[in-house]
Amino acid sequence: MAKNLTSRAEDYSKWYNELVIKADLAENSGVRGCMVIKPYGFAIWEKMQAELDRMFKETGHQNAYFPLFIPKSYFSKEASHVDGFAKECAVVTHYRLKNDENGNGIVVDPAAKLEEELIVRPTSETIIWDTYRKWIQSYRDLPILVNQWANVVRWEMRTRLFLRTAEFLWQEGHTAHATREEAITEAEQMMNVYADFVENYMAVPVIKGLKTESERFAGALETYCIEALMQDGKALQAGTSHFLGQNFAKAFDVKFADKEGKLDHVWATSWGVSTRLMGALIMTHSDDNGLVLPPNLAPDQVVIVPIYRNEEQLAAASEVAEKLMTELRSQGIRVKFDNRDTHKPGWKFNEYELKGVPVRIAIGPKDVENGTVEIARRDTLSKELVAVDNAVSYITNVMEEIQKNLYTKAATYREENTTVVSSYEEFKEVLEKKGGFISAHWDGTAETEERVKNETKATIRCIPLDDDNEPGTCIFTGKPSARKVLFAKAY
Amino acid sequence: MAKNLTSRAEDYSKWYNELVIKADLAENSGVRGCMVIKPYGFAIWEKMQAELDRMFKETGHQNAYFPLFIPKSYFSKEASHVDGFAKECAVVTHYRLKNDENGNGIVVDPAAKLEEELIVRPTSETIIWDTYRKWIQSYRDLPILVNQWANVVRWEMRTRLFLRTAEFLWQEGHTAHATREEAITEAEQMMNVYADFVENYMAVPVIKGLKTESERFAGALETYCIEALMQDGKALQAGTSHFLGQNFAKAFDVKFADKEGKLDHVWATSWGVSTRLMGALIMTHSDDNGLVLPPNLAPDQVVIVPIYRNEEQLAAASEVAEKLMTELRSQGIRVKFDNRDTHKPGWKFNEYELKGVPVRIAIGPKDVENGTVEIARRDTLSKELVAVDNAVSYITNVMEEIQKNLYTKAATYREENTTVVSSYEEFKEVLEKKGGFISAHWDGTAETEERVKNETKATIRCIPLDDDNEPGTCIFTGKPSARKVLFAKAY
Repeated sequence: MAKNLTSRAEDYSKWYNELVIKADLAENSGVRGCMVIKPYGFAIWEKMQAELDRMFKETGHQNAYFPLFIPKSYFSKEASHVDGFAKECAVVTHYRLKNDENGNGIVVDPAAKLEEELIVRPTSETIIWDTYRKWIQSYRDLPILVNQWANVVRWEMRTRLFLRTAEFLWQEGHTAHATREEAITEAEQMMNVYADFVENYMAVPVIKGLKTESERFAGALETYCIEALMQDGKALQAGTSHFLGQNFAKAFDVKFADKEGKLDHVWATSWGVSTRLMGALIMTHSDDNGLVLPPNLAPDQVVIVPIYRNEEQLAAASEVAEKLMTELRSQGIRVKFDNRDTHKPGWKFNEYELKGVPVRIAIGPKDVENGTVEIARRDTLSKELVAVDNAVSYITNVMEEIQKNLYTKAATYREENTTVVSSYEEFKEVLEKKGGFISAHWDGTAETEERVKNETKATIRCIPLDDDNEPGTCIFTGKPSARKVLFAKAY
Repeated sequence: MAKNLTSRAEDYSKWYNELVIKADLAENSGVRGCMVIKPYGFAIWEKMQAELDRMFKETGHQNAYFPLFIPKSYFSKEASHVDGFAKECAVVTHYRLKNDENGNGIVVDPAAKLEEELIVRPTSETIIWDTYRKWIQSYRDLPILVNQWANVVRWEMRTRLFLRTAEFLWQEGHTAHATREEAITEAEQMMNVYADFVENYMAVPVIKGLKTESERFAGALETYCIEALMQDGKALQAGTSHFLGQNFAKAFDVKFADKEGKLDHVWATSWGVSTRLMGALIMTHSDDNGLVLPPNLAPDQVVIVPIYRNEEQLAAASEVAEKLMTELRSQGIRVKFDNRDTHKPGWKFNEYELKGVPVRIAIGPKDVENGTVEIARRDTLSKELVAVDNAVSYITNVMEEIQKNLYTKAATYREENTTVVSSYEEFKEVLEKKGGFISAHWDGTAETEERVKNETKATIRCIPLDDDNEPGTCIFTGKPSARKVLFAKAY
């Protein structure tokens, strides 16, 4: 390939890293573990945000904004939460710099030490529940259905663009309810909203399920998740929704009076997806030629490239292009006309292939003469000559087809790479030779889960919700198992 | 007033603080100087963001995202920038907490000290220009027209909700150009975009001007600004746009090759508006009854309140309301129907007055009988009975009128509170007794500016761009002055 992109077969991990850089999505910054999201990458994230935000609002949620900093003591209030989150994090200890007296530039002013250290939020349950205490007195104040779009920081030692970075962008929903049932319904609803978004916009099929106790969010009674399978046979957790019970309400003393005036602690959920979804999007569909974007999220859905040898030919192609653009835009299609004279058509074809633009139209002198345009699909790399009068309806159809095709392809891959095994030998063999999701019986203990993980690096991704719930025996211990669970190596 | 809101005449500052809390816009958090933006306040900010973002994109800008943290050494690279920004800021010194060995909860792990401290961004010129060095080689890479929506932190000692907070939300544009002229044109364009937004959406009239050298952004050659006047006669800087010359390009070694291959440093601008605009919006229009919102930014433009004594009357009013809502929504009007049975109509009227909803519709049994509705305007507090068949066109018109009226009212106030003075005595008298903008001759020196500031607390808000440029003599020193400038006490 002219793009000098490592192939997936050669080195999947290298392919991913190169692709993120070459397609202008993101790059590493001068700050350890923090990425710069470049305009093209951010434009995709903005599309994701817009759709998710619409879905959140349609399900009754409102946005708000809470502080970036969390006083250290807040973390100690919920016992299991502190172990999960208050460890690898950025700690603000001072609030002033000053000129060094010995002329060594600027230094931290030791006189400006904070009485209590501030943690840069790794997640906002604690600061939000400290706030909700002031907002909630009676059942009339419930439910609170709030979402926040924000940056968060978790000090990761090994980072990868989008998949694992010290700072990342996400949304975090935090809801408060009068009853246990209502909170569980909310947590399930948001898992379903995520699945809807990931499947219908990202074209990435997911398995809905529950996390095991050891994989649960720190402070949750139940973690719902959606799990996707990447092209290298590794799983990626695409979103989580937590039923938090009354844990945070108890930790932050948030009570409400019900209709009879009886006081009880409030029930909670939290749920989030992050820029990690960008990693899932890239790894699910892209190929050795570059990015492949689903039309529903592509910043440019169609690009038009004129082919010409002189000004006259350019003018003729431009005339066709302008008309086509007007019509496509009136259909709500995002189209770009690349008439730059600084780059040749071949260079442009390569560029848009690399950047995953779903549909490419080429208009040359012969096309102008014959009233045709050449329409190429990014997903199949196929081309077709289409009468210019039929181009708009052709493109509308082809975009729908691409969206569907990407989903189907990914679903087929996942199906082919999900294996039911009945012994630990088989489990290890499949894991090593084939990868993918492995469906197997497990005795339900954290101990077995841990031992399998240590021996094979595979973890239980989830207890699928649509399972047949057939009992059996654990592949590792032979003990009784209530149902099969889904194992995989994971990002 | 039933809202227990302090009147403006009594204590303007207290009125503002109470209003922000009572109208559910924002509140202080458990973290010193950091605010919680509540759903209603955030909904207004989202409307501002949406319009500004559209305007930025229409002028060719793209969004991107840069790291929250900036290595300390980056600040030292641009000499004047460090003095302006690297002082009162949040400093991250450690990346891990641990359980205290003596059982005192969690403590900072001294072993996890960063080699170089990280500053939580107070503004992003340094980290962005460190990145642009990698993006720019040739004139073909220019211009770069990038904007970022982000949170920033400046450690303020005295904070006020929206007006001055340690953490705030903003957008910061950072552009790179091949020529000085192009960069100046960009800086001017963005000042004009801001003025357009503030005047036509926020209904707040502004003066466009240049900052004096001592009021300029740290690192800028020229700062363009828009200045608004609040109801207490104090000025508020609503937005700034900086021509940065080659200062950051030189500090971060960013050069480009022109068409002839000659290397030169890149020219820069930066520009920003923040959640401070919320303060300007609140203080310009609101009254002793509460918030007054311009229809262009109101989350709910119209609220419908049914008045009833029994279920039958509610059903009849609801029928009228539902029909009206459908029609209003088809016109793109944001309308809410408040049929809660937990609150009385009078309580609701009060609530929506406090929250500044531009148009309120009441539908009672007599209205149903007569085919009318009662329509109340928040700006004038006037009410009118309107035939339900004419309601939609009446409301469409009244919303336009409200938007215009708010602007006109604020413009008239500003005109009445802008005084030309020709002596320092007069200057001090006007400043003390009347306040507002004072137009006066100034000799152009930082020394005079400083002395006037120390003696009167008034600063030069700007050198207006639409001035007649008539020369005169400085009111303070009697020295020659090239043109009048605008003084005021300011937020």
